[in-house]
Amino acid sequence: MIDRRMMMATSAAFAFVGRAKAEERMPMYGLIGQMKAVPGKRAALAGILLEGTETMPGCLSYIIAEDRVDADALWITEVWDSQQSHAASLKLPAVQAAITKGRPLIAGFGSRTETLPLGGSGLRES
Amino acid sequence: MIDRRMMMATSAAFAFVGRAKAEERMPMYGLIGQMKAVPGKRAALAGILLEGTETMPGCLSYIIAEDRVDADALWITEVWDSQQSHAASLKLPAVQAAITKGRPLIAGFGSRTETLPLGGSGLRES
Repeated sequence: MIDRRMMMATSAAFAFVGRAKAEERMPMYGLIGQMKAVPGKRAALAGILLEGTETMPGCLSYIIAEDRVDADALWITEVWDSQQSHAASLKLPAVQAAITKGRPLIAGFGSRTETLPLGGSGLRES
Repeated sequence: MIDRRMMMATSAAFAFVGRAKAEERMPMYGLIGQMKAVPGKRAALAGILLEGTETMPGCLSYIIAEDRVDADALWITEVWDSQQSHAASLKLPAVQAAITKGRPLIAGFGSRTETLPLGGSGLRES
């Protein structure tokens, strides 16, 4: 039997657990990578990468940019709410389809840096 | 004297100018840069960089991240609505104050890449 006092205690306990969970949340996960397109295919590759970037769970930022010096290079900067969300995104059907479609347009990869994003401006709500 | 027909023509002309302006808007401007802190000062430097990043006109994304390999390195990835907005931001009093405060904590700079951002997810409204 649950009386009013027990309900209040339970609800306080849940509030505490909720707070503890928020404090213990996973660190964010970031990637800064350069991708080289097959000559003349950078725009096509960028178009594929831009398709469907709105729909990846846990993705807080995903920006595609042209290198201003190297005419074949793109930069992809990513922020995820956790490393797990990034790993899971690679299994999404839309992402798998983009990888299949984009692969023939990729000549190689440049630098790739893993980061621990701390914050800033322009991160989506997860 | 402006009659109804002239008003309609004028309003169509304004609509045309508005559309043309939207199509001619400036390319975005991006920066991907590594900053090295004085040993042990990375967190303090990051804190200074994170202060007031919400208030820079034309800033679409400004994210501070720790390098996961180099314990003294930070990465700053930026997207601006134009190169002019980025240049103007360096003259903002809050940014000038942050530069003054942060300078003694900076040991040097690593790679710096200028980009032309194309789009993606997580860009603020300008």
